[in-house]
Amino acid sequence: MKTITLSHGSGGKLMHDLIKDLFLKNLGNPFLNKMGDAALIKSWAKKTAYTTDSFVVKPLFFPGGDIGKLSVCGTVNDLAVSGAMPKYLSCGMIVEDGFSYSDLEKITISIRDACKFAGVSIVAGDFKVVEKKAVDGIFINTSGIGEAFEDSFIDIARIRPGDKIIISGTIGDHAASILLAREDLKFKTKIKSDCSSLNKFVSSIICEDIKFMRDPTRGGLATTLNEISLASGYDISIEETGVPIKKSVRALCEILGFDPLYMANEGKLMAIVSPGSAEKILLKMKRHASGKDARIIGEVKKEKDKKVYLKTQSGGLRILDMITGEQLPRIC
Amino acid sequence: MKTITLSHGSGGKLMHDLIKDLFLKNLGNPFLNKMGDAALIKSWAKKTAYTTDSFVVKPLFFPGGDIGKLSVCGTVNDLAVSGAMPKYLSCGMIVEDGFSYSDLEKITISIRDACKFAGVSIVAGDFKVVEKKAVDGIFINTSGIGEAFEDSFIDIARIRPGDKIIISGTIGDHAASILLAREDLKFKTKIKSDCSSLNKFVSSIICEDIKFMRDPTRGGLATTLNEISLASGYDISIEETGVPIKKSVRALCEILGFDPLYMANEGKLMAIVSPGSAEKILLKMKRHASGKDARIIGEVKKEKDKKVYLKTQSGGLRILDMITGEQLPRIC
Repeated sequence: MKTITLSHGSGGKLMHDLIKDLFLKNLGNPFLNKMGDAALIKSWAKKTAYTTDSFVVKPLFFPGGDIGKLSVCGTVNDLAVSGAMPKYLSCGMIVEDGFSYSDLEKITISIRDACKFAGVSIVAGDFKVVEKKAVDGIFINTSGIGEAFEDSFIDIARIRPGDKIIISGTIGDHAASILLAREDLKFKTKIKSDCSSLNKFVSSIICEDIKFMRDPTRGGLATTLNEISLASGYDISIEETGVPIKKSVRALCEILGFDPLYMANEGKLMAIVSPGSAEKILLKMKRHASGKDARIIGEVKKEKDKKVYLKTQSGGLRILDMITGEQLPRIC
Repeated sequence: MKTITLSHGSGGKLMHDLIKDLFLKNLGNPFLNKMGDAALIKSWAKKTAYTTDSFVVKPLFFPGGDIGKLSVCGTVNDLAVSGAMPKYLSCGMIVEDGFSYSDLEKITISIRDACKFAGVSIVAGDFKVVEKKAVDGIFINTSGIGEAFEDSFIDIARIRPGDKIIISGTIGDHAASILLAREDLKFKTKIKSDCSSLNKFVSSIICEDIKFMRDPTRGGLATTLNEISLASGYDISIEETGVPIKKSVRALCEILGFDPLYMANEGKLMAIVSPGSAEKILLKMKRHASGKDARIIGEVKKEKDKKVYLKTQSGGLRILDMITGEQLPRIC
């Protein structure tokens, strides 16, 4: 089996060959091809959104995606929900000595396809190889920059009591697919990760009545709502029956004792919108593949205890806390 | 001992506390404090330089620096040698379950001090914890963006035969310090890494007569020269006696059989300059602490075999190849 060795990370001839034969071949563009210490790109007029994320997902390949696709979508989505059009990404890989060359190629091709789909380019890269057992296979960091749609649309400070909370689709799909792939559970229904880029979806719905957006990844919808409640100061109330969850995901969670509200998503958007425009925005979402299962799931309350409440199916009210332990490590 | 646990990477309460108590406390600024999915920064008029680097150095702490300082300086320097003033950095940490809290704090404080020295801010961050043995301690990725000084100063295409090659100081210091720290060798002379940010040095010398710059990190001066020869097409000739090397570094290399020309530097600049201005630029360099040992070490030849030649001390001529194996893994 052709493998990656320490020499591929030395900065020398083998690394240059690898960069040419694998990375430039698949990810090449005028900026990356220059192989400079930094890419020099044209600046734009509106604000620049800037983000970073490291990906340590296990297993590397799972139904619906792999670490390559995930590392593009994750960063693209962070830019998109911040109200920006993602433009350029950086990509840093840390690979274990002995890692399969063909797996690295598969991951690189996934990165290429995900970039093409999202309309972004990788303009800066770094490749390190460490000795056996110093890293578990491959970890990838991406950062990304994008041009803001408008300078002040998306701002947590614009949230007011009465604002509606919309989720763009079913929750927990990504974490459930990882769980299944990791445990090699025999489960009749296939569960696919929702891993996908949301920037085109966001540009199809963006308007001033969307006050804030976030993609509920690590910690899931419940943690994201708690972060928003903490930062805005307002309580939030969610209807349990309103939250869309796939039957298969719900069944898996019941068997294993996981709460889907805390499970990571990688292709979902949560938006907080003006009450008067909620239905209109919901309809716009439903017209797009990424939003076909969108639902209004709750609202911002006038109370300022920084708490998130769940109205349960049985009519009770329970506090939805921020996650305290670790539900599922290496989910992304 | 207080340690980092998997729960610190869950996206939940423990992670939020860690972010507040450690990262925002030390690295906080109006962008980072917002804890958004992306920082929204004001764009600028000139071109944007964009780079990334992952740091896997072993040991984490070494004479002259640590992985925190290194991860700021490395990215700052990539921007600086590309002819840009570094402005904003992102920082992604991947930490092993059980990692010492106080070591993480030391590293964070080093990042803070290095940012302050270079005049940059970390505006986007990510923190992941993986299980024991999935990563060796801590790996850090930084990316960075900066504003270009002028749009077309630094361009490998401007290199012409006769251009002079200047190195800003002694070579091999960083790799030698890592080597000593790693092997725990009893060596009388202290060797400190040259790890430092070069952006202020670069702004003090930048002018149109500097055609190209690079910081000779992994693979050392010899590899950097080969990259330039390959990309520009021209041969390069270097005088062995001209290359500044500390006595202690030379002695260590002789004992261990390393070639200082291939050893990594983390605070050195190599510039290719117009022949008529070489002495003037050299003098400007020498006025700055980062350039006090600067020397003209060679020139660009008119031959186009893409080869780098070393005129040896004894008067011979030998080809200086690109590194082929791995001299010293995890040097940065």
